[in-house]
Amino acid sequence: MKNMDIQGIEDSDSVKAYNVAIVGATGLVGQELLRCLQQRAFPLGRVRLLASARSAGIKIPFNQDEMTVEETNLEALKRSELAFFAAAPEVSAQLGTTVIKNGTVVIDIANAFPSDDRVPIIVPEVNLADLKKQTRLIVSPTAGAIILSVALAPIHKVNPIKRMLVSTYESVSGSGAVAVEELSTQTRLVLEGRPIVPHYYPHQIAFNLLPETDVFLDNGYSREEWRIAREVRRLLHANNLPISVTAVRVPIYYGYAASVYIELSRRMTADQARSLLATAPGVRVLDDPSVSLYPQPWVAAGQDDVFVGRIREDESHVHGLLLWIVGDNIRKGAALNAVQIAEALAERGWLN
Amino acid sequence: MKNMDIQGIEDSDSVKAYNVAIVGATGLVGQELLRCLQQRAFPLGRVRLLASARSAGIKIPFNQDEMTVEETNLEALKRSELAFFAAAPEVSAQLGTTVIKNGTVVIDIANAFPSDDRVPIIVPEVNLADLKKQTRLIVSPTAGAIILSVALAPIHKVNPIKRMLVSTYESVSGSGAVAVEELSTQTRLVLEGRPIVPHYYPHQIAFNLLPETDVFLDNGYSREEWRIAREVRRLLHANNLPISVTAVRVPIYYGYAASVYIELSRRMTADQARSLLATAPGVRVLDDPSVSLYPQPWVAAGQDDVFVGRIREDESHVHGLLLWIVGDNIRKGAALNAVQIAEALAERGWLN
Repeated sequence: MKNMDIQGIEDSDSVKAYNVAIVGATGLVGQELLRCLQQRAFPLGRVRLLASARSAGIKIPFNQDEMTVEETNLEALKRSELAFFAAAPEVSAQLGTTVIKNGTVVIDIANAFPSDDRVPIIVPEVNLADLKKQTRLIVSPTAGAIILSVALAPIHKVNPIKRMLVSTYESVSGSGAVAVEELSTQTRLVLEGRPIVPHYYPHQIAFNLLPETDVFLDNGYSREEWRIAREVRRLLHANNLPISVTAVRVPIYYGYAASVYIELSRRMTADQARSLLATAPGVRVLDDPSVSLYPQPWVAAGQDDVFVGRIREDESHVHGLLLWIVGDNIRKGAALNAVQIAEALAERGWLN
Repeated sequence: MKNMDIQGIEDSDSVKAYNVAIVGATGLVGQELLRCLQQRAFPLGRVRLLASARSAGIKIPFNQDEMTVEETNLEALKRSELAFFAAAPEVSAQLGTTVIKNGTVVIDIANAFPSDDRVPIIVPEVNLADLKKQTRLIVSPTAGAIILSVALAPIHKVNPIKRMLVSTYESVSGSGAVAVEELSTQTRLVLEGRPIVPHYYPHQIAFNLLPETDVFLDNGYSREEWRIAREVRRLLHANNLPISVTAVRVPIYYGYAASVYIELSRRMTADQARSLLATAPGVRVLDDPSVSLYPQPWVAAGQDDVFVGRIREDESHVHGLLLWIVGDNIRKGAALNAVQIAEALAERGWLN
């Protein structure tokens, strides 16, 4: 399955190529990771595709060939310089923390370390300076935190955000392939006028809205709502920034959209915000609603950028701005961000 | 089509029954009006179903019988004590303002008088006292303003709202039957992997989100965003209340949902808000997210009430509350509200 040239790299120090493991390789994020690594020509040595025992043996296309998925095992991880964890959080918490002692660098995309301040979270466009040489465990944040911080950091840097209110519109792919299938199945049943029995979600998702994207905490917020707020604060280095999030699952396959209010330290006009974002890394401004130009999840799917539009001065606060922010939750919201972290590590020679 | 008993009522002053015209009778709102009038046993005399020339001759089920749609004509309107206008705004503006001179009471559901402060707007649960005897032209507000004001008026009355931020999730039925059909057609095409050419909406709506629900104004807000704010202020008698709305079309058939932030004059706990809303007219609290109990548009469809859940204290302001508000845009958001206005007029004897 692997030719001798690539296999040979494994033992060579002179050629910079890295043995990489993907844990959760058969999932939506795992598949997108593999796609990003190839599309961006990440210097790959031996690639190990790992998943649960149930998925072992599955063949996955890779370059001109195909690769066989193995059951996740410590040996494969130890032999990798870099491991992406995109499986259940428990897997990251157990195996991830074990293999870093062996020198493997772990990038966690599984939300396994939600409240541990010692584990750095990185969005390369936002806080790459927080990436340190000795770090072996790095978190790629939750999709909402990545997408919001890419769009808002450029504003925050010149005019600090004092307060943020967010309402999200989140696709089913954020829940994994099972939920994508459930949306298709339920949609067909509704179109045929047949009854629905929900499986993955507690209620019907087809042609419906569910303001539940995670388990709920005692204060009425969900864990994801809390986590987005916490991670955006960490990414923006704004420890006390008040942020309230309402997260809603909507019947779309891909994408993450948010209606966002930010209160700034000083007044900023919509034009100023547009100019600022026009040159910001990883951001694309699509903002001429009079000709129906604005970000749409269907169009953002498969794109690297975070899209921003409907930029308006808030009519209810003189320092307020409203924005409509959209990104691909599986790509920039998960896989691409993790690969960008890996690229930064590789460029700095911190993967050996 | 009409039996002699009902026909006979037309000429009798002793029996309180009203000749009623529905303009736009073949549309989604027109059909729901007819349903509400029957379900609530409104004292109907002769009913005239009016629509454009294209729809004239269509038969519509009514009670045990059926009725024929006529082309809208001044004579039929003049012979009615009450006319509901649920067609294009131009029709209300032209014919509606003509027939009121003849004594016909007009209830406009077509957004025909957006900036005329002399025309009262009424949501019976909220501001019935604004209904005056001599009024011949009454506006039933836009769905968003109705649904938000029913849910928020009970709070505003005891603890005045100082500021409001709203992000909406609006179904395609708000755009009419053509848009409902477009969602079905596009959804089928996506499931079959076939290409889509948008017709009614500027972009694909199936499995997508469009932050465009109306034409845009120079300040970047859409007319509907502006109108919701304006009408909520009028309904709550809060002329200077700052309100900013972001309106988004989502791929659901029925329902109107909103993620709402309100800043109150004093602190109110989530529990206090829940208690207050539990006994409010037209409101149903569904708020136990830990067991997945919250308002959903699919469940709210066909229901009279406005549903409120996800009630939380805002983490970013000590006087702030967050709420998730859902109603049926065609029923309480349009037809039912108009019929409730008619009932109030009839009870007071103001329809003759």
